[in-house]
Amino acid sequence: MDEIRIIQVGLGSIGKEIAKLAMEKGFKIIGAVDINPELVGKDLGEVLGKEETGVKISDSLKETLSKEADIVVNSSISWLEKLEPQITESVKAGKNFISTCEELVYPFPRYPEIAERIDRLAKENNVSVLGTGVNPGFVMDRLVLALAQNCKKINEIRVLRSGDASKRRLPFQKKVGIGMNLEEFKERLKRTGFGHVGLFESLRMVSDALDMKLDEIKEDIEPVCDGERVLGIKQTASGVIENKPVISLEFQMYAGAENKDVINIAGDPPINLEIKNGIQGDTATAAIIVNSIPNVAKARSGLLTVKDFV
Amino acid sequence: MDEIRIIQVGLGSIGKEIAKLAMEKGFKIIGAVDINPELVGKDLGEVLGKEETGVKISDSLKETLSKEADIVVNSSISWLEKLEPQITESVKAGKNFISTCEELVYPFPRYPEIAERIDRLAKENNVSVLGTGVNPGFVMDRLVLALAQNCKKINEIRVLRSGDASKRRLPFQKKVGIGMNLEEFKERLKRTGFGHVGLFESLRMVSDALDMKLDEIKEDIEPVCDGERVLGIKQTASGVIENKPVISLEFQMYAGAENKDVINIAGDPPINLEIKNGIQGDTATAAIIVNSIPNVAKARSGLLTVKDFV
Repeated sequence: MDEIRIIQVGLGSIGKEIAKLAMEKGFKIIGAVDINPELVGKDLGEVLGKEETGVKISDSLKETLSKEADIVVNSSISWLEKLEPQITESVKAGKNFISTCEELVYPFPRYPEIAERIDRLAKENNVSVLGTGVNPGFVMDRLVLALAQNCKKINEIRVLRSGDASKRRLPFQKKVGIGMNLEEFKERLKRTGFGHVGLFESLRMVSDALDMKLDEIKEDIEPVCDGERVLGIKQTASGVIENKPVISLEFQMYAGAENKDVINIAGDPPINLEIKNGIQGDTATAAIIVNSIPNVAKARSGLLTVKDFV
Repeated sequence: MDEIRIIQVGLGSIGKEIAKLAMEKGFKIIGAVDINPELVGKDLGEVLGKEETGVKISDSLKETLSKEADIVVNSSISWLEKLEPQITESVKAGKNFISTCEELVYPFPRYPEIAERIDRLAKENNVSVLGTGVNPGFVMDRLVLALAQNCKKINEIRVLRSGDASKRRLPFQKKVGIGMNLEEFKERLKRTGFGHVGLFESLRMVSDALDMKLDEIKEDIEPVCDGERVLGIKQTASGVIENKPVISLEFQMYAGAENKDVINIAGDPPINLEIKNGIQGDTATAAIIVNSIPNVAKARSGLLTVKDFV
């Protein structure tokens, strides 16, 4: 394939990492979009701490989509309902689409109608759409499914992703409630929720792929505290068959938590894996997005999932 | 897809595990081939320690291929030159083909002409051909490539597969020289070689996929001894760029070795993974073969590699 031309949408911390890496890997960024007034009108190179690129950051996706590009790389939002208009516009403009949007990684069970609309529109326009990242998109789903290929029989799957939130960037720390007191945490949990978006998506990707018919899915989130002070969260999702958990995903992210990813498959053969220090989330998400660009650009059309790729 | 019909070729220990698992998973074995006179003419069920199946084991591949089947599952041999006639016959009979043959997992660098012939023939006959297994096929290649997706930059990859050979079946123990004295080992090493087939294949699959242009590949094999008594082997392959190893694969299989699989990627982010007790080879190879059957049966035609699948 010739040089791949990218439109980067979203220039938060992940978006900037993606844009920098994409340029380093030889992709050509021909447009950049962000709604942050501090960025609009600036040269992309300046925002990335690099040389001038000649690409001015625009706040108009529509205008930017009129340029010739192969793929829109979107790191603007975690929620699919809010992302759908951006997908629709990009796909109608004939652009492939890849995003860090957690809910796009496996949208079929939670948003069957949106998934159906995106898939149909992508096929009509002969482009592909993919959501990916390290989690969801790798540690708790794609890696689990790769390992599961080794098993004749699987009785139970347990995945733990644990990280020391005090070492992460500030918006991430806020997302897990660090620094609040317990009352504030409980108040806010009722109102808007906390934590990781994607446990449900990972769980369903795994159970669907392994043909496990879950009776129910239990989700829980609770604060980890030092007295009244919130250090972060423990969040779980588990898929239950006949009152037994067959898939349990646990996401621990609090100040002082050990950094590690653990996958245990009780089966024949059993598989017990640990990634020491875990896989650093922000860097890995940028890498997975950029490494997936060529695959998405040449994939079959429609709404894809990471199950479609190695 | 409707029920998948299989012809099982090779009923050694792995072949029997494959056949049993395939039946348990609901595939239909409609033919079975082995050249062992102790098996020929017997009912497949009897040989598998199961109920009668009505499938008589034949020593004629040609005759068995005249039956209607979707895929030939072959666990007869590690070497591609010896396997090629079986592939040719199966593909010409319009059958998809999957095999534990280590050299088939990534045949392009060592056997470019055979690979080209198989690919062309498979495309002409609209079927697919795949070699896979736990190693090569998973631990040292496919899993490494999946992990590598998380990295912006990779400086060096090191993989260790270590196993206590005293716990494995007898033919496997012989393959690593257990019980010989050092003189016998050296003699036989000169004559026919020992050890694991597939390090070279895994190394090239990884380096090609990651676009690492290796200057040379170094391969080594040495006995692990207790005095004059051989306990097994250490075998290595490493890919070198500018005198530095960038990919090192080490296969340790001797009596008393720790059971573990380790992957270290020095990069950004670094990834350090350990599978405790390793992935049990024979069981996992049978599982990977059977779990791959539906994918191979519906894949694009041609000579495929595990890079084409999750």
